[in-house]
Amino acid sequence: MFSRLFASTVTAEAHCDLPCGVYDPAQARIEAESVKAIQEKYQGNEDPAFRARAIEIKEQRSELVKHHLSVLWSDYFKAPHFEAYPNLHTLFNDAVKAAGAGGTKGSNDPATGQALLDLIAQIDAIFWETKKAAA
Amino acid sequence: MFSRLFASTVTAEAHCDLPCGVYDPAQARIEAESVKAIQEKYQGNEDPAFRARAIEIKEQRSELVKHHLSVLWSDYFKAPHFEAYPNLHTLFNDAVKAAGAGGTKGSNDPATGQALLDLIAQIDAIFWETKKAAA
Amino acid sequence: MFSRLFASTVTAEAHCDLPCGVYDPAQARIEAESVKAIQEKYQGNEDPAFRARAIEIKEQRSELVKHHLSVLWSDYFKAPHFEAYPNLHTLFNDAVKAAGAGGTKGSNDPATGQALLDLIAQIDAIFWETKKAAA
Amino acid sequence: MFSRLFASTVTAEAHCDLPCGVYDPAQARIEAESVKAIQEKYQGNEDPAFRARAIEIKEQRSELVKHHLSVLWSDYFKAPHFEAYPNLHTLFNDAVKAAGAGGTKGSNDPATGQALLDLIAQIDAIFWETKKAAA
Amino acid sequence: MFSRLFASTVTAEAHCDLPCGVYDPAQARIEAESVKAIQEKYQGNEDPAFRARAIEIKEQRSELVKHHLSVLWSDYFKAPHFEAYPNLHTLFNDAVKAAGAGGTKGSNDPATGQALLDLIAQIDAIFWETKKAAA
Amino acid sequence: MFSRLFASTVTAEAHCDLPCGVYDPAQARIEAESVKAIQEKYQGNEDPAFRARAIEIKEQRSELVKHHLSVLWSDYFKAPHFEAYPNLHTLFNDAVKAAGAGGTKGSNDPATGQALLDLIAQIDAIFWETKKAAA
Ligand code: NI
Ligand code: NI
Ligand code: NI
Ligand code: NI
Ligand code: NI
Ligand code: NI
Repeated sequence: MFSRLFASTVTAEAHCDLPCGVYDPAQARIEAESVKAIQEKYQGNEDPAFRARAIEIKEQRSELVKHHLSVLWSDYFKAPHFEAYPNLHTLFNDAVKAAGAGGTKGSNDPATGQALLDLIAQIDAIFWETKKAAA
Repeated sequence: MFSRLFASTVTAEAHCDLPCGVYDPAQARIEAESVKAIQEKYQGNEDPAFRARAIEIKEQRSELVKHHLSVLWSDYFKAPHFEAYPNLHTLFNDAVKAAGAGGTKGSNDPATGQALLDLIAQIDAIFWETKKAAA
Repeated sequence: MFSRLFASTVTAEAHCDLPCGVYDPAQARIEAESVKAIQEKYQGNEDPAFRARAIEIKEQRSELVKHHLSVLWSDYFKAPHFEAYPNLHTLFNDAVKAAGAGGTKGSNDPATGQALLDLIAQIDAIFWETKKAAA
Repeated sequence: MFSRLFASTVTAEAHCDLPCGVYDPAQARIEAESVKAIQEKYQGNEDPAFRARAIEIKEQRSELVKHHLSVLWSDYFKAPHFEAYPNLHTLFNDAVKAAGAGGTKGSNDPATGQALLDLIAQIDAIFWETKKAAA
Repeated sequence: MFSRLFASTVTAEAHCDLPCGVYDPAQARIEAESVKAIQEKYQGNEDPAFRARAIEIKEQRSELVKHHLSVLWSDYFKAPHFEAYPNLHTLFNDAVKAAGAGGTKGSNDPATGQALLDLIAQIDAIFWETKKAAA
Repeated sequence: MFSRLFASTVTAEAHCDLPCGVYDPAQARIEAESVKAIQEKYQGNEDPAFRARAIEIKEQRSELVKHHLSVLWSDYFKAPHFEAYPNLHTLFNDAVKAAGAGGTKGSNDPATGQALLDLIAQIDAIFWETKKAAA
């Protein structure tokens, strides 16, 4: 089962600013899934101590989403990409805002977590199109 | 193309210690791929300044691998898992060591990066087996 | 008084992944003592703002405990140690779990802080036995 | 222009994602000044140990520049700003790239530090125009 | 006094421990302004979730104030400065305490944020006197 | 053996800024021992890749020393202590400088590591005197 799983994400990717050339929107997505899951648990638990922890951890995971998105935007995507996808800057800006004070940081509503995931999915789609085009 | 990509990683997962319930060995794997890519670039570039950066960044990415593996080992896997997979502790310990001073931190040989990836792949296989069993 | 204090901890130790060869379970223990002290202060102060701070800080100190324990487990202890102490993997796994969501992170009961300290004390005892054996 | 630009910084500002409402491009600029100063010291000192430290520290300060710029771009600037300044997205993207692998991280030439400072000065000018317009 | 104080900040500066030679009390001040702004928002919003975030973020910004002040005290100021300004040690110690548990970390009263800003302003004044004297 | 070891450090202590009331100069000392050990390994290994790692790690451990010392100076020691020990401010300032650019960060000579340890030992002695006086 394992090899099949990898078969479909052949060149799964991440980043660093050497650059190593490894990028993958999955990093942002996984953290965003965590954010949404935290929001759901928050809604289902009224204990103040639990909620304080949930808020704190959600803040950190949202910040990680912002970081991973910023890396893609600043390190992976180049001028030709932004020309080919005129809305790409706005899409990224919307996404980092969706993980900020006006989005998942400031809200405990799972709908904001889902909205963030939807924006990341759009970025992911463009990312893999550009990877295919470059292959 | 995007939806197909997600179709195969339906329950892609990560972590936090709320716990949010989201875990995914992909986090460790992606950083390890970065580590190996850095080692390959190191071998292909003799500029001392580049190599100093490569060593520093590889150190950080290796540390992230260790962190992500520690999270899986301490937060996701429970006593029944360790009983079902008697070598699981050793496998994890080997993997974190493979990302440490005796592995990718201490060496610039891509073979050590590959050895780390191989160990993560074994962990990943067990992880998804346990997820399937729990489904 | 000072020299006597050091006399008894002659080879007091810590870590880094050079490795420098300096390790000391005291690092984990001190943070765990902080965790327990925070839990006690939490129980004695009902101000919501104080409690929010206590929860946040306890989360961080618990994470430091997990980090310091992971370092000992991955960097200091080697295969022969795990053979000599068959329960060592389980002991470490129990300890990091005791500092996690099911332990001091998730609870404000000082009993969980003490349980964590007890596990660290067991690790500490084994650590110093192995140091003595290696001397 | 630079001195005039600072003449207006009476209530110099920064950020957090509460949001506190405090922002200030000075945070990015100060780190970029540090980056350029490091590059100059690097050029004037051939000791390998000094240079290794310089590279490492420059990497960190460059990362801080990227972080501070990302905060302004994602948290302070809103849709109306991006409409009023059509090149603002590109300006920010150029600036974070100028602090990355193709800029001050990857180079020890102070000219790259100055190029980064020039881009930050352009952002700073727009920032204060928008602050004045909102006053 | 405040505006006059800033009139002299022509070449505002920061730090790193290369050292790059760039220092600027503005780094501490900006974070302290954020702390005070957070306290004001805290007073104006009784939502428990908002307040939990405010407390957490204020803790981080206060810690940054302490860090930036510690850098000035340990890296910029030298023995001759401490001789010329006999109260400088006490001033710094008061300031870091004002950003700690007995100050802005432990309190949500904006008066503590202002008290911190006043102490930083005193440090800032001395800083620029020493810079002028060294010019 | 374990209990005896703890018997001599009865109230071993650390910190956080709740405050939890737990402080211990051992935290700074352990990191400083690591710094000195790294310097010794640096002197005994001419491999450029090893030395690059040693410099980077030593930078981090030195920074941790500075952090732990700053905590003691800002959080544990109060005005009466500084009156009782008139040289305490200078002692701390000398110690953090000894872990900085002019000390263990900037040098690979183990003598600078030892000088740092000697200063920490002086702080440690005063610390335990004040603890005994408060008991
Ligand atoms: Ni990379
Ligand atoms: Ni989680
Ligand atoms: Ni070490
Ligand atoms: Ni803010
Ligand atoms: Ni500097
Ligand atoms: Ni404490």
